[in-house]
Amino acid sequence: MIPPVELLDFLRKENKFIVATHMSPDGDGLGSAIALSTALRKIGKEAILLCRDSVPQQCKFLPGQEGFITLEQFTVQGSRFADFRNLILVDCNDLDRISTEESQISNLKFQTSAVIDHHESEKPFGDIRWIAPEAAATGLMVFYIIKELGVEITEDIAINLYAAISVDTGNFRYENTTHEVFSVAAELKKAGAKTHAIYRELFESWSEGRFKLFINVLNTLERKDGVAIVRVTKKMFEETATSPDDTEHFVDFPRIMKDVKVSILFREIEDDYYKLSLRSKDDINVASTAEAFGGGGHKNAAGCRIRADFETAKREVLKAFRKVLPA
Amino acid sequence: MIPPVELLDFLRKENKFIVATHMSPDGDGLGSAIALSTALRKIGKEAILLCRDSVPQQCKFLPGQEGFITLEQFTVQGSRFADFRNLILVDCNDLDRISTEESQISNLKFQTSAVIDHHESEKPFGDIRWIAPEAAATGLMVFYIIKELGVEITEDIAINLYAAISVDTGNFRYENTTHEVFSVAAELKKAGAKTHAIYRELFESWSEGRFKLFINVLNTLERKDGVAIVRVTKKMFEETATSPDDTEHFVDFPRIMKDVKVSILFREIEDDYYKLSLRSKDDINVASTAEAFGGGGHKNAAGCRIRADFETAKREVLKAFRKVLPA
Repeated sequence: MIPPVELLDFLRKENKFIVATHMSPDGDGLGSAIALSTALRKIGKEAILLCRDSVPQQCKFLPGQEGFITLEQFTVQGSRFADFRNLILVDCNDLDRISTEESQISNLKFQTSAVIDHHESEKPFGDIRWIAPEAAATGLMVFYIIKELGVEITEDIAINLYAAISVDTGNFRYENTTHEVFSVAAELKKAGAKTHAIYRELFESWSEGRFKLFINVLNTLERKDGVAIVRVTKKMFEETATSPDDTEHFVDFPRIMKDVKVSILFREIEDDYYKLSLRSKDDINVASTAEAFGGGGHKNAAGCRIRADFETAKREVLKAFRKVLPA
Repeated sequence: MIPPVELLDFLRKENKFIVATHMSPDGDGLGSAIALSTALRKIGKEAILLCRDSVPQQCKFLPGQEGFITLEQFTVQGSRFADFRNLILVDCNDLDRISTEESQISNLKFQTSAVIDHHESEKPFGDIRWIAPEAAATGLMVFYIIKELGVEITEDIAINLYAAISVDTGNFRYENTTHEVFSVAAELKKAGAKTHAIYRELFESWSEGRFKLFINVLNTLERKDGVAIVRVTKKMFEETATSPDDTEHFVDFPRIMKDVKVSILFREIEDDYYKLSLRSKDDINVASTAEAFGGGGHKNAAGCRIRADFETAKREVLKAFRKVLPA
């Protein structure tokens, strides 16, 4: 995988960067952004890490995560960042993934924008664009950028990139895990990434409340042909003192069943308004279904929102999948 | 990792091998044995695959597994194998891991024996011994043997070796996952191992009944300090049309909670009689607790049986752990 010359030139030539990742950030977005900004600083640049939301608990171990500022802080301290005019979007490819609020976005005043992303659904944003859907993780793309910049993969960079790759490959479980992914993992391990500890932090540091939420969610399991549906409600969050962040990975579990081809988590945002996370096996494309509902994502992992009561939303989605699933 | 010259010479010089793995075989034992015998055949040797027990369901996808014969078949067809006088033990290092029955072992008539294993507990068996506890899997050792023999890693060999490594590293989760493991995984992937499909076969082929049993078991969760307890009853097996085999790995799940140091599954064998599976993190020794109840095992994975009603059994076990767990 070779980063575009234009992108490398931009990183080498400019001096002050805002490195931003998507709202509701995950290990790939955060780890990639931190690793890139760390590498940029090592070649004498200045970089600000920006994310609408704060770093979720399971990513607090990432070295450098404390450098993130929220969009709110960015706005308040605006004058401090007045001369940061180069924006790099990491693990997303449009400003609507940075924030849904127009006022927050308008505070981002930039001259040149670059996009480094591996998501399939593309929007035409960015002066310099590197979008590689074949990359398992944005962390993999950032690894090659850092190599091209001639920066040594330090232990801190290795931890961030390994976390990014681990999250987006389901720790080497998913189909996107290429031989390149394993080779890069070998190099990150050699560079000092304590991979078992990273796994524990990312996947096995649940609070008791989260585990109870998990049980509550599993109890809602419904099966219809090859589709498994689970559901999380606002009430469940209240009862277990948890938040939407805590549902990460829940949608993966029903796939453990041999006959389940598609797994869907319905998360209640407000009354009659649901956020759906969709996961599939093999050739079943959930991105196209998500797009049909105004969302997007990858072939085997996508998301969308539906404004309807649960039964209606479920019926609509199941109807969409009847066309997609083999009988 | 470099295989001993003596072992390579033995494999090159001799012509007829019995390649045997341990009873209750797993992916590492089976995959390693199949890969080795496949490679031996490619350099013109004859190899018989031997295991006391039949290949378990989750390993039936391994190409070449159909070549295994059981000790019983081996005994019955004895004359067919009369001139196979070279024994290779794979993923174990003593005949007592091949079978506990003296009569079965005595049918194994061999001149020279070799041992290829990565287990720590060593017995002084074998004329030629390669025991490497630092190897994450025996599959890794066999990979290096095959390379030294100059045999190409075919797709079939790659699948077997990848499965071996995946099982024994918990799919790259455990602490034994070195950078070498990742490098070998990269090479196996390049050689055609469909790693995602292998993961699915090994870890994600649960029946719907098993998943329902899993939910039922999680619903029994109780927490007391650092100990998590879940329970499976005869009634649950009946209701979900499952069997005790289906509870494999269940006890691992409560460990996903950060504050859980010990996880215990109580399985009802009959009224007021329970089989306990115990798992722990880090330095907490569950083997000693299991031994106190007449059981045994390893530091982080042990088992025992208790004849009492559930509440009494639970009270006794929790009492035992109060001494072990840090306050």
